[in-house]
Amino acid sequence: MIHTISKIRVRYAETDRMDIVYHSNYLVWFETARILMLDQIGLPYKLIEKNGLFIPVLEARASYLSPARFDDRLDIHLYMRQKPRVRFYLEYEVKRSKELLVKGSTAHGFIDKNGKGVRPPNQFIEQINAAWNENA
Amino acid sequence: MIHTISKIRVRYAETDRMDIVYHSNYLVWFETARILMLDQIGLPYKLIEKNGLFIPVLEARASYLSPARFDDRLDIHLYMRQKPRVRFYLEYEVKRSKELLVKGSTAHGFIDKNGKGVRPPNQFIEQINAAWNENA
Amino acid sequence: MIHTISKIRVRYAETDRMDIVYHSNYLVWFETARILMLDQIGLPYKLIEKNGLFIPVLEARASYLSPARFDDRLDIHLYMRQKPRVRFYLEYEVKRSKELLVKGSTAHGFIDKNGKGVRPPNQFIEQINAAWNENA
Amino acid sequence: MIHTISKIRVRYAETDRMDIVYHSNYLVWFETARILMLDQIGLPYKLIEKNGLFIPVLEARASYLSPARFDDRLDIHLYMRQKPRVRFYLEYEVKRSKELLVKGSTAHGFIDKNGKGVRPPNQFIEQINAAWNENA
Repeated sequence: MIHTISKIRVRYAETDRMDIVYHSNYLVWFETARILMLDQIGLPYKLIEKNGLFIPVLEARASYLSPARFDDRLDIHLYMRQKPRVRFYLEYEVKRSKELLVKGSTAHGFIDKNGKGVRPPNQFIEQINAAWNENA
Repeated sequence: MIHTISKIRVRYAETDRMDIVYHSNYLVWFETARILMLDQIGLPYKLIEKNGLFIPVLEARASYLSPARFDDRLDIHLYMRQKPRVRFYLEYEVKRSKELLVKGSTAHGFIDKNGKGVRPPNQFIEQINAAWNENA
Repeated sequence: MIHTISKIRVRYAETDRMDIVYHSNYLVWFETARILMLDQIGLPYKLIEKNGLFIPVLEARASYLSPARFDDRLDIHLYMRQKPRVRFYLEYEVKRSKELLVKGSTAHGFIDKNGKGVRPPNQFIEQINAAWNENA
Repeated sequence: MIHTISKIRVRYAETDRMDIVYHSNYLVWFETARILMLDQIGLPYKLIEKNGLFIPVLEARASYLSPARFDDRLDIHLYMRQKPRVRFYLEYEVKRSKELLVKGSTAHGFIDKNGKGVRPPNQFIEQINAAWNENA
Protein backbone atom coordinates (compact mmCIF):
# COMPACT_ATOMS: atom_id res chain seq x y z
CA MET A 1 0.00 0.00 0.00
CA ILE A 2 1.00 3.60 -0.56
CA HIS A 3 -0.11 6.09 2.06
CA THR A 4 0.51 9.82 1.87
CA ILE A 5 -0.75 12.64 4.10
CA SER A 6 -1.08 16.13 2.70
CA LYS A 7 -1.69 19.05 5.05
CA ILE A 8 -4.30 21.68 4.25
CA ARG A 9 -5.36 24.82 6.02
CA VAL A 10 -8.82 25.85 4.87
CA ARG A 11 -8.86 29.16 2.99
CA TYR A 12 -11.64 31.71 3.30
CA ALA A 13 -12.19 31.42 -0.45
CA GLU A 14 -13.00 27.75 0.03
CA THR A 15 -15.96 28.40 2.31
CA ASP A 16 -19.49 29.21 1.22
CA ARG A 17 -22.44 30.99 2.79
CA MET A 18 -23.50 27.77 4.57
CA ASP A 19 -20.34 28.51 6.62
CA ILE A 20 -18.74 25.26 5.49
CA VAL A 21 -16.24 24.29 2.84
CA TYR A 22 -17.85 24.26 -0.58
CA HIS A 23 -17.99 20.62 -1.61
CA SER A 24 -16.02 20.79 -4.86
CA ASN A 25 -12.89 21.96 -3.04
CA TYR A 26 -12.27 18.51 -1.64
CA LEU A 27 -11.47 17.31 -5.15
CA VAL A 28 -8.79 19.98 -5.35
CA TRP A 29 -7.36 18.80 -2.02
CA PHE A 30 -7.40 15.18 -3.17
CA GLU A 31 -5.13 16.39 -5.92
CA THR A 32 -2.67 18.00 -3.53
CA ALA A 33 -2.35 14.54 -1.96
CA ARG A 34 -1.76 12.92 -5.38
CA ILE A 35 0.93 15.47 -6.19
CA LEU A 36 2.60 14.78 -2.84
CA MET A 37 2.40 11.01 -3.35
CA LEU A 38 4.14 11.36 -6.71
CA ASP A 39 6.82 13.49 -5.05
CA GLN A 40 7.30 10.87 -2.39
CA ILE A 41 7.72 7.97 -4.79
CA GLY A 42 10.28 10.11 -6.63
CA LEU A 43 8.35 10.90 -9.79
CA PRO A 44 6.93 14.43 -9.50
CA TYR A 45 3.88 15.09 -11.65
CA LYS A 46 5.57 18.05 -13.27
CA LEU A 47 8.23 15.65 -14.60
CA ILE A 48 5.56 13.29 -15.92
CA GLU A 49 4.06 16.14 -17.94
CA LYS A 50 7.52 17.21 -19.08
CA ASN A 51 7.84 13.71 -20.51
CA GLY A 52 4.66 14.25 -22.52
CA LEU A 53 2.30 12.23 -20.36
CA PHE A 54 -0.71 13.33 -18.35
CA ILE A 55 -2.78 11.69 -15.62
CA PRO A 56 -6.33 12.96 -15.99
CA VAL A 57 -9.06 12.16 -13.51
CA LEU A 58 -11.42 9.56 -15.01
CA GLU A 59 -13.74 9.26 -12.04
CA ALA A 60 -14.15 11.06 -8.75
CA ARG A 61 -16.37 10.41 -5.76
CA ALA A 62 -16.81 12.03 -2.39
CA SER A 63 -19.00 11.27 0.61
CA TYR A 64 -19.47 14.23 2.89
CA LEU A 65 -19.89 13.06 6.48
CA SER A 66 -19.21 16.24 8.41
CA PRO A 67 -18.23 19.70 7.18
CA ALA A 68 -14.79 21.26 7.30
CA ARG A 69 -14.77 24.94 8.17
CA PHE A 70 -12.67 28.04 7.70
CA ASP A 71 -9.16 27.82 9.10
CA ASP A 72 -9.39 24.12 9.93
CA ARG A 73 -6.13 22.24 9.68
CA LEU A 74 -6.88 19.09 7.77
CA ASP A 75 -5.03 15.92 6.87
CA ILE A 76 -5.75 14.62 3.41
CA HIS A 77 -4.91 10.93 3.51
CA LEU A 78 -4.32 9.19 0.20
CA TYR A 79 -4.27 5.41 -0.09
CA MET A 80 -3.30 3.32 -3.08
CA ARG A 81 -4.43 -0.17 -2.10
CA GLN A 82 -4.08 -1.94 -5.45
CA LYS A 83 -1.04 -1.78 -7.65
CA PRO A 84 -1.66 0.16 -10.87
CA ARG A 85 -2.60 -1.69 -14.04
CA VAL A 86 -3.83 0.27 -17.05
CA ARG A 87 -5.88 2.26 -14.61
CA PHE A 88 -5.19 2.98 -11.00
CA TYR A 89 -7.42 3.81 -8.10
CA LEU A 90 -6.88 6.05 -5.12
CA GLU A 91 -8.86 6.50 -1.94
CA TYR A 92 -8.93 9.52 0.30
CA GLU A 93 -9.89 10.43 3.82
CA VAL A 94 -10.12 14.02 4.98
CA LYS A 95 -9.57 14.24 8.71
CA ARG A 96 -9.59 17.01 11.29
CA SER A 97 -7.48 15.45 14.03
CA LYS A 98 -9.13 12.06 14.52
CA GLU A 99 -12.47 13.02 13.01
CA LEU A 100 -13.24 11.69 9.55
CA LEU A 101 -15.00 14.42 7.54
CA VAL A 102 -14.99 13.22 3.96
CA LYS A 103 -14.20 9.99 2.15
CA GLY A 104 -13.42 9.90 -1.52
CA SER A 105 -11.89 8.06 -4.42
CA THR A 106 -10.55 8.77 -7.87
CA ALA A 107 -9.67 6.66 -10.89
CA HIS A 108 -6.87 7.57 -13.26
CA GLY A 109 -5.08 6.52 -16.39
CA PHE A 110 -2.19 7.88 -18.41
CA ILE A 111 -2.70 9.69 -21.70
CA ASP A 112 -0.23 11.10 -24.20
CA LYS A 113 -0.17 14.55 -25.78
CA ASN A 114 -2.87 13.56 -28.25
CA GLY A 115 -5.19 12.47 -25.48
CA LYS A 116 -4.73 8.79 -26.32
CA GLY A 117 -4.74 6.36 -23.41
CA VAL A 118 -1.38 4.69 -22.84
CA ARG A 119 -0.03 2.19 -20.34
CA PRO A 120 1.63 3.67 -17.25
CA PRO A 121 5.35 4.20 -17.94
CA ASN A 122 7.70 1.62 -16.43
CA GLN A 123 9.26 4.20 -14.19
CA PHE A 124 5.89 4.83 -12.54
CA ILE A 125 5.32 1.10 -11.95
CA GLU A 126 8.82 0.66 -10.60
CA GLN A 127 8.67 3.61 -8.25
CA ILE A 128 5.30 2.47 -6.94
CA ASN A 129 6.75 -1.00 -6.37
CA ALA A 130 9.75 0.43 -4.55
CA ALA A 131 7.56 2.54 -2.29
CA TRP A 132 5.01 -0.18 -1.63
CA ASN A 133 4.70 -1.05 2.02
CA GLU A 134 3.32 -4.52 2.50
CA ASN A 135 2.57 -3.95 6.15
CA ALA A 136 0.86 -0.62 6.00
CA MET B 1 -39.24 12.25 -13.61
CA ILE B 2 -37.91 15.77 -13.34
CA HIS B 3 -35.60 16.93 -16.13
CA THR B 4 -33.89 20.31 -16.23
CA ILE B 5 -31.27 21.67 -18.62
CA SER B 6 -28.91 24.38 -17.48
CA LYS B 7 -26.75 26.21 -20.02
CA ILE B 8 -23.09 26.84 -19.34
CA ARG B 9 -20.40 28.61 -21.31
CA VAL B 10 -16.97 27.49 -20.17
CA ARG B 11 -14.96 30.26 -18.53
CA TYR B 12 -11.21 30.65 -18.97
CA ALA B 13 -10.86 30.38 -15.19
CA GLU B 14 -12.39 26.90 -15.39
CA THR B 15 -9.65 25.52 -17.63
CA ASP B 16 -6.30 24.17 -16.51
CA ARG B 17 -2.92 23.76 -18.13
CA MET B 18 -3.98 20.41 -19.64
CA ASP B 19 -6.15 22.70 -21.82
CA ILE B 20 -9.33 21.11 -20.50
CA VAL B 21 -11.87 22.02 -17.85
CA TYR B 22 -10.51 21.30 -14.39
CA HIS B 23 -12.51 18.36 -13.08
CA SER B 24 -13.92 19.90 -9.90
CA ASN B 25 -15.81 22.54 -11.88
CA TYR B 26 -18.38 20.02 -13.05
CA LEU B 27 -19.65 19.80 -9.46
CA VAL B 28 -20.25 23.54 -9.54
CA TRP B 29 -22.15 23.17 -12.80
CA PHE B 30 -24.24 20.34 -11.39
CA GLU B 31 -25.29 22.86 -8.79
CA THR B 32 -26.38 25.42 -11.36
CA ALA B 33 -28.72 22.72 -12.67
CA ARG B 34 -30.07 22.02 -9.16
CA ILE B 35 -30.72 25.71 -8.61
CA LEU B 36 -32.54 25.89 -11.94
CA MET B 37 -34.59 22.77 -11.15
CA LEU B 38 -35.72 24.34 -7.87
CA ASP B 39 -36.67 27.51 -9.75
CA GLN B 40 -38.65 25.47 -12.23
CA ILE B 41 -40.65 23.58 -9.62
CA GLY B 42 -41.42 26.94 -8.02
CA LEU B 43 -39.31 26.67 -4.88
CA PRO B 44 -36.09 28.65 -5.38
CA TYR B 45 -33.19 27.54 -3.22
CA LYS B 46 -32.78 31.05 -1.86
CA LEU B 47 -36.29 30.77 -0.42
CA ILE B 48 -35.50 27.40 1.14
CA GLU B 49 -32.56 28.96 2.98
CA LYS B 50 -34.71 31.95 3.95
CA ASN B 51 -37.00 29.42 5.63
CA GLY B 52 -34.06 28.12 7.67
CA LEU B 53 -33.39 24.96 5.71
CA PHE B 54 -30.35 23.92 3.71
CA ILE B 55 -29.71 21.19 1.18
CA PRO B 56 -26.09 20.15 1.52
CA VAL B 57 -24.41 17.70 -0.83
CA LEU B 58 -24.01 14.33 0.90
CA GLU B 59 -22.39 12.50 -1.97
CA ALA B 60 -21.07 13.46 -5.37
CA ARG B 61 -19.75 11.40 -8.26
CA ALA B 62 -18.51 12.21 -11.71
CA SER B 63 -17.26 10.07 -14.60
CA TYR B 64 -15.18 12.01 -17.07
CA LEU B 65 -15.62 10.55 -20.55
CA SER B 66 -14.35 13.38 -22.73
CA PRO B 67 -13.06 16.82 -21.79
CA ALA B 68 -14.93 20.09 -22.10
CA ARG B 69 -12.79 23.00 -23.24
CA PHE B 70 -12.65 26.77 -23.06
CA ASP B 71 -15.64 28.56 -24.53
CA ASP B 72 -17.67 25.37 -25.06
CA ARG B 73 -21.39 25.80 -24.76
CA LEU B 74 -22.61 22.96 -22.61
CA ASP B 75 -25.94 21.59 -21.53
CA ILE B 76 -26.05 20.36 -17.95
CA HIS B 77 -28.91 17.88 -17.81
CA LEU B 78 -30.33 17.09 -14.40
CA TYR B 79 -32.60 14.09 -13.83
CA MET B 80 -34.55 13.22 -10.72
CA ARG B 81 -35.71 9.66 -11.40
CA GLN B 82 -36.96 8.71 -7.94
CA LYS B 83 -39.25 10.80 -5.82
CA PRO B 84 -37.54 12.22 -2.74
CA ARG B 85 -37.79 10.43 0.58
CA VAL B 86 -35.56 11.49 3.46
CA ARG B 87 -32.79 11.69 0.93
CA PHE B 88 -33.01 12.41 -2.72
CA TYR B 89 -30.79 11.54 -5.64
CA LEU B 90 -29.99 13.45 -8.79
CA GLU B 91 -28.21 12.41 -11.95
CA TYR B 92 -26.41 14.63 -14.40
CA GLU B 93 -25.18 14.53 -17.96
CA VAL B 94 -22.91 17.19 -19.36
CA LYS B 95 -23.30 17.42 -23.12
CA ARG B 96 -21.72 19.45 -25.90
CA SER B 97 -24.41 19.22 -28.57
CA LYS B 98 -25.09 15.48 -28.76
CA GLU B 99 -21.79 14.42 -27.24
CA LEU B 100 -21.87 13.15 -23.68
CA LEU B 101 -18.80 14.44 -21.84
CA VAL B 102 -19.43 13.76 -18.17
CA LYS B 103 -21.93 11.76 -16.15
CA GLY B 104 -22.52 12.42 -12.50
CA SER B 105 -24.77 12.06 -9.52
CA THR B 106 -25.36 13.68 -6.16
CA ALA B 107 -27.23 12.71 -3.01
CA HIS B 108 -28.90 15.28 -0.77
CA GLY B 109 -30.91 15.72 2.37
CA PHE B 110 -32.38 18.67 4.21
CA ILE B 111 -30.81 20.07 7.37
CA ASP B 112 -31.92 22.84 9.70
CA LYS B 113 -29.90 25.78 11.02
CA ASN B 114 -28.26 23.56 13.62
CA GLY B 115 -27.08 21.12 10.99
CA LYS B 116 -29.59 18.50 12.10
CA GLY B 117 -31.09 16.30 9.38
CA VAL B 118 -34.81 16.91 8.84
CA ARG B 119 -37.43 15.51 6.48
CA PRO B 120 -37.98 17.46 3.26
CA PRO B 121 -40.65 20.13 3.81
CA ASN B 122 -44.10 19.34 2.45
CA GLN B 123 -43.86 22.16 -0.01
CA PHE B 124 -40.82 20.54 -1.62
CA ILE B 125 -42.57 17.17 -1.93
CA GLU B 126 -45.70 18.77 -3.33
CA GLN B 127 -43.89 20.90 -5.88
CA ILE B 128 -41.87 17.89 -7.02
CA ASN B 129 -45.09 15.91 -7.36
CA ALA B 130 -46.73 18.69 -9.35
CA ALA B 131 -43.77 18.93 -11.71
CA TRP B 132 -43.33 15.19 -12.11
CA ASN B 133 -43.64 14.05 -15.66
CA GLU B 134 -44.58 10.39 -15.87
CA ASN B 135 -43.71 10.11 -19.51
CA ALA B 136 -40.40 11.86 -19.56
CA MET C 1 -16.41 53.85 -26.81
CA ILE C 2 -17.16 50.15 -26.61
CA HIS C 3 -19.77 49.11 -24.07
CA THR C 4 -20.75 45.50 -23.38
CA ILE C 5 -23.03 44.04 -20.71
CA SER C 6 -22.51 40.48 -19.56
CA LYS C 7 -25.17 38.81 -17.41
CA ILE C 8 -24.19 36.80 -14.32
CA ARG C 9 -26.21 34.84 -11.83
CA VAL C 10 -24.23 34.38 -8.64
CA ARG C 11 -23.35 30.75 -7.93
CA TYR C 12 -23.31 29.25 -4.46
CA ALA C 13 -19.66 28.35 -5.00
CA GLU C 14 -18.89 32.05 -5.42
CA THR C 15 -20.08 32.99 -1.94
CA ASP C 16 -18.06 32.76 1.26
CA ARG C 17 -18.92 32.43 4.92
CA MET C 18 -19.35 36.21 5.22
CA ASP C 19 -22.48 35.48 3.14
CA ILE C 20 -21.20 37.62 0.29
CA VAL C 21 -19.44 36.96 -2.99
CA TYR C 22 -15.78 36.20 -2.40
CA HIS C 23 -13.88 39.16 -3.78
CA SER C 24 -11.67 37.39 -6.32
CA ASN C 25 -14.69 36.19 -8.30
CA TYR C 26 -15.31 39.64 -9.70
CA LEU C 27 -12.11 39.31 -11.72
CA VAL C 28 -13.54 36.15 -13.27
CA TRP C 29 -16.73 38.01 -14.13
CA PHE C 30 -14.78 40.89 -15.64
CA GLU C 31 -13.38 38.27 -17.97
CA THR C 32 -16.80 37.03 -19.03
CA ALA C 33 -17.47 40.62 -20.13
CA ARG C 34 -14.18 40.74 -22.08
CA ILE C 35 -15.02 37.49 -23.83
CA LEU C 36 -18.44 38.86 -24.73
CA MET C 37 -16.98 42.14 -25.99
CA LEU C 38 -14.64 40.22 -28.29
CA ASP C 39 -17.60 38.19 -29.56
CA GLN C 40 -19.52 41.37 -30.23
CA ILE C 41 -16.75 43.04 -32.22
CA GLY C 42 -16.53 39.84 -34.26
CA LEU C 43 -13.19 38.51 -33.03
CA PRO C 44 -13.85 35.78 -30.43
CA TYR C 45 -11.01 35.20 -28.00
CA LYS C 46 -10.87 31.54 -28.92
CA LEU C 47 -10.00 32.58 -32.46
CA ILE C 48 -7.28 34.92 -31.21
CA GLU C 49 -5.65 32.02 -29.37
CA LYS C 50 -6.09 29.80 -32.41
CA ASN C 51 -4.02 32.39 -34.28
CA GLY C 52 -1.24 32.01 -31.74
CA LEU C 53 -1.88 35.17 -29.75
CA PHE C 54 -2.91 35.62 -26.13
CA ILE C 55 -4.26 38.56 -24.14
CA PRO C 56 -3.01 38.17 -20.58
CA VAL C 57 -4.12 40.45 -17.77
CA LEU C 58 -1.30 42.87 -16.92
CA GLU C 59 -3.10 44.76 -14.18
CA ALA C 60 -6.37 44.37 -12.37
CA ARG C 61 -8.16 46.57 -9.84
CA ALA C 62 -11.44 46.37 -8.03
CA SER C 63 -13.22 48.66 -5.56
CA TYR C 64 -15.85 46.88 -3.53
CA LEU C 65 -18.66 49.29 -2.66
CA SER C 66 -21.43 46.90 -1.70
CA PRO C 67 -21.52 43.11 -1.68
CA ALA C 68 -23.21 40.88 -4.23
CA ARG C 69 -24.93 37.84 -2.75
CA PHE C 70 -26.01 34.35 -3.68
CA ASP C 71 -28.43 34.16 -6.59
CA ASP C 72 -28.17 37.85 -7.45
CA ARG C 73 -28.62 38.64 -11.11
CA LEU C 74 -25.83 41.03 -12.02
CA ASP C 75 -24.88 43.10 -15.01
CA ILE C 76 -21.16 43.27 -15.68
CA HIS C 77 -20.64 46.43 -17.70
CA LEU C 78 -17.41 46.70 -19.67
CA TYR C 79 -16.22 50.01 -21.10
CA MET C 80 -13.33 50.62 -23.46
CA ARG C 81 -12.94 54.40 -23.39
CA GLN C 82 -9.59 54.73 -25.17
CA LYS C 83 -8.70 53.06 -28.40
CA PRO C 84 -6.05 50.36 -27.97
CA ARG C 85 -2.40 51.15 -28.56
CA VAL C 86 0.26 48.65 -27.52
CA ARG C 87 -1.73 48.21 -24.36
CA PHE C 88 -5.41 48.64 -23.83
CA TYR C 89 -7.47 49.46 -20.80
CA LEU C 90 -10.92 48.34 -19.77
CA GLU C 91 -13.22 49.53 -17.04
CA TYR C 92 -15.98 47.59 -15.35
CA GLU C 93 -19.07 48.23 -13.29
CA VAL C 94 -20.92 45.44 -11.55
CA LYS C 95 -24.54 46.39 -11.03
CA ARG C 96 -27.56 44.78 -9.41
CA SER C 97 -30.38 46.61 -11.16
CA LYS C 98 -29.39 50.27 -10.72
CA GLU C 99 -27.13 49.71 -7.77
CA LEU C 100 -23.39 49.91 -8.38
CA LEU C 101 -21.64 47.20 -6.35
CA VAL C 102 -18.11 47.04 -7.68
CA LYS C 103 -15.95 49.14 -9.96
CA GLY C 104 -12.88 47.75 -11.62
CA SER C 105 -10.33 48.02 -14.37
CA THR C 106 -7.85 45.84 -16.21
CA ALA C 107 -4.88 46.49 -18.48
CA HIS C 108 -3.92 44.14 -21.30
CA GLY C 109 -1.46 43.55 -24.06
CA PHE C 110 -0.99 40.89 -26.70
CA ILE C 111 1.71 38.24 -26.43
CA ASP C 112 2.75 35.49 -28.81
CA LYS C 113 3.30 31.81 -28.07
CA ASN C 114 6.72 32.54 -26.62
CA GLY C 115 5.29 35.06 -24.18
CA LYS C 116 6.80 37.98 -26.09
CA GLY C 117 4.80 41.19 -26.18
CA VAL C 118 3.53 42.06 -29.66
CA ARG C 119 1.42 44.83 -31.13
CA PRO C 120 -2.32 44.15 -31.34
CA PRO C 121 -3.12 42.49 -34.67
CA ASN C 122 -4.65 44.74 -37.34
CA GLN C 123 -7.86 42.79 -37.26
CA PHE C 124 -8.33 43.67 -33.59
CA ILE C 125 -7.74 47.37 -34.21
CA GLU C 126 -10.07 47.37 -37.21
CA GLN C 127 -12.88 45.55 -35.45
CA ILE C 128 -12.61 47.88 -32.47
CA ASN C 129 -12.76 50.84 -34.84
CA ALA C 130 -15.80 49.45 -36.62
CA ALA C 131 -17.61 48.87 -33.33
CA TRP C 132 -16.64 52.20 -31.81
CA ASN C 133 -19.60 54.33 -30.90
CA GLU C 134 -18.68 57.98 -30.72
CA ASN C 135 -21.83 58.96 -28.91
CA ALA C 136 -21.96 56.28 -26.28
CA MET D 1 6.41 47.88 9.51
CA ILE D 2 4.82 44.47 9.60
CA HIS D 3 6.26 41.89 7.21
CA THR D 4 4.91 38.37 6.82
CA ILE D 5 5.82 35.66 4.33
CA SER D 6 3.28 33.01 3.43
CA LYS D 7 4.40 29.94 1.48
CA ILE D 8 2.36 28.68 -1.46
CA ARG D 9 2.76 25.72 -3.76
CA VAL D 10 0.81 26.28 -6.96
CA ARG D 11 -2.06 23.82 -7.40
CA TYR D 12 -3.06 22.38 -10.76
CA ALA D 13 -6.53 23.85 -10.24
CA GLU D 14 -4.96 27.31 -10.11
CA THR D 15 -3.52 27.10 -13.63
CA ASP D 16 -5.37 27.86 -16.85
CA ARG D 17 -4.95 26.83 -20.46
CA MET D 18 -2.39 29.59 -21.03
CA ASP D 19 -0.24 27.31 -18.82
CA ILE D 20 0.06 30.00 -16.17
CA VAL D 21 -1.67 30.74 -12.90
CA TYR D 22 -5.10 32.24 -13.52
CA HIS D 23 -4.84 35.86 -12.41
CA SER D 24 -7.62 35.93 -9.80
CA ASN D 25 -5.84 33.31 -7.66
CA TYR D 26 -3.27 35.83 -6.51
CA LEU D 27 -6.00 37.60 -4.54
CA VAL D 28 -6.67 34.34 -2.73
CA TRP D 29 -2.97 34.02 -1.94
CA PHE D 30 -2.81 37.60 -0.69
CA GLU D 31 -5.43 36.49 1.78
CA THR D 32 -3.37 33.55 3.02
CA ALA D 33 -0.70 36.13 3.87
CA ARG D 34 -3.22 38.31 5.72
CA ILE D 35 -4.42 35.34 7.73
CA LEU D 36 -0.83 34.48 8.62
CA MET D 37 -0.06 38.08 9.59
CA LEU D 38 -3.02 38.09 11.97
CA ASP D 39 -1.78 34.80 13.45
CA GLN D 40 1.64 36.28 13.92
CA ILE D 41 0.46 39.40 15.72
CA GLY D 42 -1.57 37.11 17.98
CA LEU D 43 -5.08 37.91 16.77
CA PRO D 44 -6.22 35.13 14.41
CA TYR D 45 -8.90 36.16 11.95
CA LYS D 46 -11.16 33.36 13.15
CA LEU D 47 -11.15 34.98 16.58
CA ILE D 48 -12.00 38.37 15.10
CA GLU D 49 -15.08 36.87 13.43
CA LYS D 50 -15.95 35.04 16.64
CA ASN D 51 -16.05 38.47 18.26
CA GLY D 52 -18.59 39.62 15.69
CA LEU D 53 -16.26 41.65 13.48
CA PHE D 54 -15.24 41.14 9.88
CA ILE D 55 -12.47 42.56 7.71
CA PRO D 56 -13.79 42.72 4.15
CA VAL D 57 -11.63 43.70 1.21
CA LEU D 58 -12.50 47.24 0.11
CA GLU D 59 -10.02 47.49 -2.72
CA ALA D 60 -7.65 45.12 -4.42
CA ARG D 61 -4.98 45.64 -7.07
CA ALA D 62 -2.48 43.41 -8.78
CA SER D 63 0.24 44.03 -11.36
CA TYR D 64 1.28 40.89 -13.18
CA LEU D 65 4.95 41.10 -14.16
CA SER D 66 5.76 37.48 -14.87
CA PRO D 67 3.60 34.36 -14.59
CA ALA D 68 3.71 31.78 -11.86
CA ARG D 69 3.26 28.21 -13.06
CA PHE D 70 2.10 24.83 -11.84
CA ASP D 71 4.02 23.46 -8.88
CA ASP D 72 6.00 26.66 -8.30
CA ARG D 73 6.91 27.30 -4.69
CA LEU D 74 6.10 30.92 -4.04
CA ASP D 75 6.63 33.39 -1.25
CA ILE D 76 3.73 35.75 -0.67
CA HIS D 77 5.23 38.77 1.08
CA LEU D 78 2.82 41.03 2.95
CA TYR D 79 3.84 44.50 4.09
CA MET D 80 1.93 46.86 6.33
CA ARG D 81 3.84 50.13 5.97
CA GLN D 82 1.38 52.52 7.64
CA LYS D 83 -0.25 51.93 10.97
CA PRO D 84 -3.99 51.27 10.68
CA ARG D 85 -6.44 54.12 11.13
CA VAL D 86 -10.09 53.59 10.22
CA ARG D 87 -8.81 51.83 7.15
CA PHE D 88 -5.60 49.96 6.67
CA TYR D 89 -3.54 49.19 3.63
CA LEU D 90 -1.45 46.18 2.77
CA GLU D 91 1.04 45.58 0.00
CA TYR D 92 2.08 42.26 -1.46
CA GLU D 93 4.90 40.81 -3.49
CA VAL D 94 4.72 37.35 -4.97
CA LYS D 95 8.19 35.94 -5.47
CA ARG D 96 9.64 32.75 -6.90
CA SER D 97 13.05 32.69 -5.22
CA LYS D 98 14.39 36.17 -5.95
CA GLU D 99 12.16 36.84 -8.92
CA LEU D 100 9.26 39.24 -8.39
CA LEU D 101 6.23 37.94 -10.26
CA VAL D 102 3.30 39.98 -9.01
CA LYS D 103 2.84 43.14 -6.95
CA GLY D 104 -0.42 43.94 -5.26
CA SER D 105 -2.25 45.87 -2.61
CA THR D 106 -5.49 45.71 -0.68
CA ALA D 107 -7.45 48.15 1.48
CA HIS D 108 -9.52 47.02 4.44
CA GLY D 109 -11.79 48.20 7.19
CA PHE D 110 -13.68 46.55 10.00
CA ILE D 111 -17.41 45.99 9.87
CA ASP D 112 -19.81 44.57 12.41
CA LYS D 113 -22.45 41.87 11.93
CA ASN D 114 -24.83 44.37 10.35
CA GLY D 115 -22.25 45.37 7.77
CA LYS D 116 -21.72 48.74 9.43
CA GLY D 117 -18.19 50.15 9.33
CA VAL D 118 -16.56 50.36 12.76
CA ARG D 119 -13.18 51.47 14.06
CA PRO D 120 -10.56 48.73 14.42
CA PRO D 121 -10.82 47.18 17.88
CA ASN D 122 -8.19 48.30 20.39
CA GLN D 123 -6.74 44.82 20.54
CA PHE D 124 -5.95 44.97 16.84
CA ILE D 125 -4.22 48.34 17.17
CA GLU D 126 -2.27 47.19 20.19
CA GLN D 127 -1.13 43.94 18.66
CA ILE D 128 -0.04 45.75 15.52
CA ASN D 129 1.89 48.23 17.66
CA ALA D 130 3.54 45.44 19.59
CA ALA D 131 4.58 43.66 16.40
CA TRP D 132 5.73 46.81 14.62
CA ASN D 133 9.35 46.71 13.63
CA GLU D 134 10.75 50.20 13.19
CA ASN D 135 13.84 49.01 11.41
CA ALA D 136 12.30 46.63 8.95
